Amino acid sequence: MAQSVLAADLGGTHLRAALVDHAGKVSHRSECPTPARASADELITAIADLLVAVVAQAEEAPAAAALGTPGLINGDEGKVILAPNIPAFRDLALAAPIATRLGFPVYIENDASVAALGEFRFGAGRGTRHLLHATLGTGIGGGIVIDGRLYRGAKGFAGEIGHMIIDPSGPVCACGSRGCLEALVSGTAFGERARRLAASGKSPTLAAIAGERPFTGADLLAAAKAGEGPAEAEIRHGGHLLGLALGGLANVLNPDAITLSGGLLGMGEMLLGPMRGAIYSIAYGPASGTPVRLTELGDDAGLLGAAAVAFERLDTGRQGAPR
Amino acid sequence: MAQSVLAADLGGTHLRAALVDHAGKVSHRSECPTPARASADELITAIADLLVAVVAQAEEAPAAAALGTPGLINGDEGKVILAPNIPAFRDLALAAPIATRLGFPVYIENDASVAALGEFRFGAGRGTRHLLHATLGTGIGGGIVIDGRLYRGAKGFAGEIGHMIIDPSGPVCACGSRGCLEALVSGTAFGERARRLAASGKSPTLAAIAGERPFTGADLLAAAKAGEGPAEAEIRHGGHLLGLALGGLANVLNPDAITLSGGLLGMGEMLLGPMRGAIYSIAYGPASGTPVRLTELGDDAGLLGAAAVAFERLDTGRQGAPR
Repeated sequence: MAQSVLAADLGGTHLRAALVDHAGKVSHRSECPTPARASADELITAIADLLVAVVAQAEEAPAAAALGTPGLINGDEGKVILAPNIPAFRDLALAAPIATRLGFPVYIENDASVAALGEFRFGAGRGTRHLLHATLGTGIGGGIVIDGRLYRGAKGFAGEIGHMIIDPSGPVCACGSRGCLEALVSGTAFGERARRLAASGKSPTLAAIAGERPFTGADLLAAAKAGEGPAEAEIRHGGHLLGLALGGLANVLNPDAITLSGGLLGMGEMLLGPMRGAIYSIAYGPASGTPVRLTELGDDAGLLGAAAVAFERLDTGRQGAPR
Repeated sequence: MAQSVLAADLGGTHLRAALVDHAGKVSHRSECPTPARASADELITAIADLLVAVVAQAEEAPAAAALGTPGLINGDEGKVILAPNIPAFRDLALAAPIATRLGFPVYIENDASVAALGEFRFGAGRGTRHLLHATLGTGIGGGIVIDGRLYRGAKGFAGEIGHMIIDPSGPVCACGSRGCLEALVSGTAFGERARRLAASGKSPTLAAIAGERPFTGADLLAAAKAGEGPAEAEIRHGGHLLGLALGGLANVLNPDAITLSGGLLGMGEMLLGPMRGAIYSIAYGPASGTPVRLTELGDDAGLLGAAAVAFERLDTGRQGAPR
């Protein structure tokens, strides 16, 4: 049997690691809380410690390791350029010091790119050649697979679909632009829609929790499920805008399929119905047949995606054809 | 010296053909008016006749031919799926009957994809690996080069950047959607802006020609150059929206460069200044360094692009690795 790889996922709350084999079988899981407000050295040490612990339990040394992490990543150089939610991750050589501890190659990749390659290899993107994947969570990310390989772009940053402008007069995004997809449709954006609904007096459910804590997309969904039409309308409108963005991208990329993952999928058909309607309403010509599929990877998406990155890097190394 | 290829360009007014060598040297030019309202058979005959005439003058038979044509093209199958401005081109096997006449391989490709590969091989995209090209004319098209090869997508339709939605409440596009880039910024869209300005009474220059003929982008530019602020504002606003669209795509594709061609470039800095400002204002993180370059191919762009398609198909055939 082929060697397993070591996969790791640096999430907002937990750092997870495990071994993953070619068939996507996950074993030797380990995890710890993501260190908050840590220095770069402390983060590197925490990641390396967890990976070393997994390797110590393995019967055979993994061939390589890969780590999915938020932010702008240059995977070819193993560097984090910028990670808005992890201040210590800035112009940081992350892969090299971990590889030194482990004694075998370590690769890093943006978490949305990781998700794309994971769906392509193990999940809803199996059987495609060109795949567009969107991660729909607190923020919006994306990853692109072309000719069966992760497409990283000139500097490694390809796939930032959350920062396409879909309404020039829309709200200001955390990135500073106005009307980004992420500013209009995301966990954060739906939380802001909930806050405005509460303030407008149109939602008793939301008004009842105002002031307790910041609003989330889950609050908006709860109000919609309680039968409040204005809350449902906000979610449906968000789905429509999401579909316009994805449909436009389908026209540009003409992928074999679009796959979706992330917490917003919990909004179900209230979000996804209008999204599909908008995709197919705008897709130009035969591109309108692009299928849209939901993730098949569940809670292991981050680990399976990181494993897919490691396997691809190993394959590419053997072929001597880096992208 | 390596063999030349036969390049052809089916434009709105003229059908052009010539031989092109590896260095981009064009020779043995020939052209005829594009047959208007012709049947599919008449169009195929006209194209084949012109190509046969060029070959008859050549010292050596070309290795292959390629034709750039508007519409949705499946280049791998040599078929035109749909060409809005050429009704006879619908579900049409175009390459095969021409190849039968010529006796060597004939390839067809969407004209914007052709333009992209032409800039990549012979023009402003030289030296890049990943390139986004936009054609800014009566309509808006685009082409994508990835890893040094034209990216065609699942069915051959990739690059349709004119049908990304950039304003969900914008004007209705010819494709039926609302707020497409092409409906907001294009020769047609600028003509519509001119018409509205003339009707509003804010432009003496435009009001003077109202009713004579349909307005064009050139009319709007003439009014702006005559010092009319409202006309200049329309062009500058169009440039801003174009920049938002291209900047968003730079975030998704992270290309080495963006190249531009087409008649709208005649609007100069009035269009391009606000466009650049918008691209750089929204490009996320280091992608903001994406250079934007204007075409270097001049009137031969269509021929050089078609030649680039033929050379790529020949190279790919030799490598045995079709995309």
